[in-house]
Amino acid sequence: MPVITFNPSGKSIIVPNGSSLLEAANQALVSVEVPCGGNGLCKKCLVRVTNGKVDFENNGALSENLIDEGFVLICRTKVLDENVCIEVLSDLEKERGKFADATQDIRLIDSELLPKDEDILPLVRKKFITVSAPEIGDGLSDLDRFKKATSIALKNQKINLPLILLQILPQILRIDDGNITITYFENSDIINIVDIESSNTEDINYGICIDIGTTTIAVQLIDMISGNIIASKTDYNSQIECGLDVISRINYGRKPERLRELRSKVLNTINGIINSFTVSLKIDSKFIYNVSIAGNTTMTHLLLGIIPEFIRLDPYTPAVYNVPFYTANEIGIEANPNTYIYIAPSVGSYVGGDITSGLLCTSLSTDSDELCLFIDIGTNGEIIVGNSEFLIGCACSAGPAFEGGGIENGMRASKGAIEMVEVHKETGKATYSTIGNTSPVGICGSGLISLIANLFKSGWIDAAGKLNRSKICDSIEISGKSARYIIAFSNETPNNKPIYITEADIDNLIRAKAAIFSACLVMLEKVELDFDSLSRIYIAGGFGRYLNIENSTIIGLIPRLDSEKFKFIGNSSVMGAYMTLISKKHRDKQNELAQKITYLDLSTEPEYMSHYTAAIFIPHTDSSMF
Amino acid sequence: MPVITFNPSGKSIIVPNGSSLLEAANQALVSVEVPCGGNGLCKKCLVRVTNGKVDFENNGALSENLIDEGFVLICRTKVLDENVCIEVLSDLEKERGKFADATQDIRLIDSELLPKDEDILPLVRKKFITVSAPEIGDGLSDLDRFKKATSIALKNQKINLPLILLQILPQILRIDDGNITITYFENSDIINIVDIESSNTEDINYGICIDIGTTTIAVQLIDMISGNIIASKTDYNSQIECGLDVISRINYGRKPERLRELRSKVLNTINGIINSFTVSLKIDSKFIYNVSIAGNTTMTHLLLGIIPEFIRLDPYTPAVYNVPFYTANEIGIEANPNTYIYIAPSVGSYVGGDITSGLLCTSLSTDSDELCLFIDIGTNGEIIVGNSEFLIGCACSAGPAFEGGGIENGMRASKGAIEMVEVHKETGKATYSTIGNTSPVGICGSGLISLIANLFKSGWIDAAGKLNRSKICDSIEISGKSARYIIAFSNETPNNKPIYITEADIDNLIRAKAAIFSACLVMLEKVELDFDSLSRIYIAGGFGRYLNIENSTIIGLIPRLDSEKFKFIGNSSVMGAYMTLISKKHRDKQNELAQKITYLDLSTEPEYMSHYTAAIFIPHTDSSMF
Repeated sequence: MPVITFNPSGKSIIVPNGSSLLEAANQALVSVEVPCGGNGLCKKCLVRVTNGKVDFENNGALSENLIDEGFVLICRTKVLDENVCIEVLSDLEKERGKFADATQDIRLIDSELLPKDEDILPLVRKKFITVSAPEIGDGLSDLDRFKKATSIALKNQKINLPLILLQILPQILRIDDGNITITYFENSDIINIVDIESSNTEDINYGICIDIGTTTIAVQLIDMISGNIIASKTDYNSQIECGLDVISRINYGRKPERLRELRSKVLNTINGIINSFTVSLKIDSKFIYNVSIAGNTTMTHLLLGIIPEFIRLDPYTPAVYNVPFYTANEIGIEANPNTYIYIAPSVGSYVGGDITSGLLCTSLSTDSDELCLFIDIGTNGEIIVGNSEFLIGCACSAGPAFEGGGIENGMRASKGAIEMVEVHKETGKATYSTIGNTSPVGICGSGLISLIANLFKSGWIDAAGKLNRSKICDSIEISGKSARYIIAFSNETPNNKPIYITEADIDNLIRAKAAIFSACLVMLEKVELDFDSLSRIYIAGGFGRYLNIENSTIIGLIPRLDSEKFKFIGNSSVMGAYMTLISKKHRDKQNELAQKITYLDLSTEPEYMSHYTAAIFIPHTDSSMF
Repeated sequence: MPVITFNPSGKSIIVPNGSSLLEAANQALVSVEVPCGGNGLCKKCLVRVTNGKVDFENNGALSENLIDEGFVLICRTKVLDENVCIEVLSDLEKERGKFADATQDIRLIDSELLPKDEDILPLVRKKFITVSAPEIGDGLSDLDRFKKATSIALKNQKINLPLILLQILPQILRIDDGNITITYFENSDIINIVDIESSNTEDINYGICIDIGTTTIAVQLIDMISGNIIASKTDYNSQIECGLDVISRINYGRKPERLRELRSKVLNTINGIINSFTVSLKIDSKFIYNVSIAGNTTMTHLLLGIIPEFIRLDPYTPAVYNVPFYTANEIGIEANPNTYIYIAPSVGSYVGGDITSGLLCTSLSTDSDELCLFIDIGTNGEIIVGNSEFLIGCACSAGPAFEGGGIENGMRASKGAIEMVEVHKETGKATYSTIGNTSPVGICGSGLISLIANLFKSGWIDAAGKLNRSKICDSIEISGKSARYIIAFSNETPNNKPIYITEADIDNLIRAKAAIFSACLVMLEKVELDFDSLSRIYIAGGFGRYLNIENSTIIGLIPRLDSEKFKFIGNSSVMGAYMTLISKKHRDKQNELAQKITYLDLSTEPEYMSHYTAAIFIPHTDSSMF
């Protein structure tokens, strides 16, 4: 039977061959509007088939062009005996702009960690200079005079001018009597000219910082003169159509044409956001001279179109940790084509530039002696522990449970997601709240933690995550050996299907929290320390903003410590990218941190498995820590 | 009345508005086959209108597509009141491959000037190295290990790897256990990696040397290991459709889209030849790692798409003399896209890389004390005089007469061109020989020199170039104030039209030779020397191979000196490009020569005009020199 996957939510369902796509969507809890009753009149259920074939009966509602591009109406489509991926356009519309505004994340960061005004020093800078006029018999070409003026102004003889700028140099030099502004990037003792403009344009310099997450991409537009964030936007990484986690992306990218596809998908997402900025703010993208990118090791490889396969094959060696400076044109980013792009350094196959960026949002970047733990929770959990003396990092595969993946009624933290659940101790009945206060359509990570913690507190599940079968309760449905807990009954949901959690779902979540907790423990033991010796615990991730410390402690995701020690820092990756965008001090610090981190491969740590086994209980076999 | 220009021959004719194009072609002595009698049936007279509009009456013989692309049948076309350029396809077919094989030019060069085996050191070289295998926990990415192995092998830490190669690095390193061959270019103390291949491929390295002439382009394919010339070909520079000399090209290129057109035209010609090599010899163009280009200053600007306008505007300052190293991809040459291209340095607006290349074919490159004169005769005449102590160079506008341009029955030196003429002292009748020994269709530069010299020797023209009207002669036709001399009577030619030379044509040729001779004289006077002090006179140019010294002396193009002192060196520009392609010693020498040349602008030399005025006689007002 074919698997039908609905993107961007990533919901999947298996239905019999010949089923209607509308049924499949309803069963998968994908909300589709069909006001015309499925007659193909209103076209509100327009979707795009991005993979696989379906049987669409066109009644003339769609043009041949649209059909050629894969568009169908859900209400007039049947599935064939073939897996398909469907892009739900109305979902995309709804979810776009639903992400919390990452501009706000700057407020989560200790102000002392942020670049000061005097730190502002972009990678690519501008300088107004005057080139002498040509004179007969001086034996100097335009290029000769340009180099002379530039080398005096920048105190460097080695100047590299791209052909595309040499082509127009004669004109630029003569518009304003040799008064020009050069945009340049100094590297390896060479001045690389990025742009030349007539007159003084020193105050026009924009920058873009980007966090490429496996699931979402956050982009901010910065005025490089003031360092101010002008615009900020988050969107789904459109690579999610090709796999939900890094391993499935790496596998997908094994064929060259698919690697190209992955690359163009991530570029489309990034450039789509940049384009939305430049259009709405009427800025020419050629004035975007600075770009700073943070992403995990796999995301960086895919962005650059580098064969990623060996990241996941023994001995797990990536092609590159410190990406050389490449131009926007080479990489494909919509900025000044000649400009050079800064990419945050990685330190291991699964500890990437998102982490070295995130560390800039922590006191680990201040050379403090206090022992800190940094946890970035996503599909992968990355953990760094250390202080000014040492840094150790590792990654563990938490799986997508915290993002609502691999959970029957799970979904990402967007509109209609149950994000908090209370469970009545006596009746067992759930009360919940949803994002956007709408009818519930599924449950997201923070909702799951809240639910499990409350089910456990009120005795409706045991330490192994099994539902309590001994008490009578409407919310628990038992069928043979399996059981499920109803969060929202069918009369409460828009599609009249209940929202529930199965014991298998609970097990998934327990395994996810166990992976992260035991990774933290192994790291601390490695340096012969324990949780109590920690002065601070930073928790990052788009997820982290909704994380409730108390509930997280109850389920055993984090140990019970003074709540003052916890600090949520939101999307620390994009904030780190912001800092390295505008400040040389922060770029230097990031590279220093990356050099300092010792990467620990958990697969070679025998203790990890025993700790993990001990942790797959609520909260833990050793409850003294919680 | 419209001017109709037929390319590639460049023949022009002015005809009344409404004339048939067939008549115009006949009058212009462009041979067109019309076997079907002008009914548009055989399509043998298919031509392409590249500029301007004509009135073509299609009778269904041509498809709309062809018509859209500008194709018409000469026999069914009338000219409008508008100048047009016509590309005669049958001419192109005939003339292609007609050029003398430039491989032979190497024999014209003193063997001591050519690179020795030990001099062979290309700009872009290969090296077989072994990169260590990845190891778990070594903290080294593929790039780190690659850089380590490369920097040890090449004793240089600064390594620049293009993204396109980093993308495939993981695979290349693992095909043959880290055994790879790097192709690299060292510049400004940085190793630029051009290619990486698995295993040892050190012996695969091809090179291309190119002479970009205003009229023709010569290209040679070289095996960089042996230095052998494998293939050689010359073709028309397809820019000739946009103007015959550099000034008209510069004017044509004033609009950006036309500059792009000029650039793509020259690239099309070059890449067309390279492609013919790679196809016939089954060589992948990615193995072309070395490219050396010589061209005059304007040709270099147009190749690179650089605004050329200021070359011809006071103070005549080009954008660039020493072109930085750009990649084949940036420039658009069909070679390995990452490789770097060597372009011969220019020294003035009208003394370009073709001249600094040509000098390598002379003893001026051997640091000899003997005073030498180097004359490159083309549409521009370039002259260098000097020895190991000093070098002075200048250019003069000879006009296209020596290439058959601006002469009523003139043509370039290709099949059917009269290349030698004897004139009977008594009867005045001409006997002649043609290139290819076919019926005559026009007269080329060497034919013109031979003709003028013999007319003068036998008293049929006077020192002012006027035909002798006092003797009765069938070959001289007098009409009012003007007169013309019939070289071939109408019964001798394929189109039954006579081939003749007018007094205006003779005047053109006298002005051309006067420009070159007086430029030489000014140069010598500048250094207080005279012709007698010259040890050697090198004459270069595609033209030069047919130059008869005796006749050239008779008309006053060159002074009468010991014929041993003259040396013809053919297309010295392409031979110089060949030398700089394979030998670092010759590249260094060329740059040293370019630095040493003092560029003299004749327009600022008052003596030039008086010398020129004295020289517009046969042979000269001061016949003692001849």
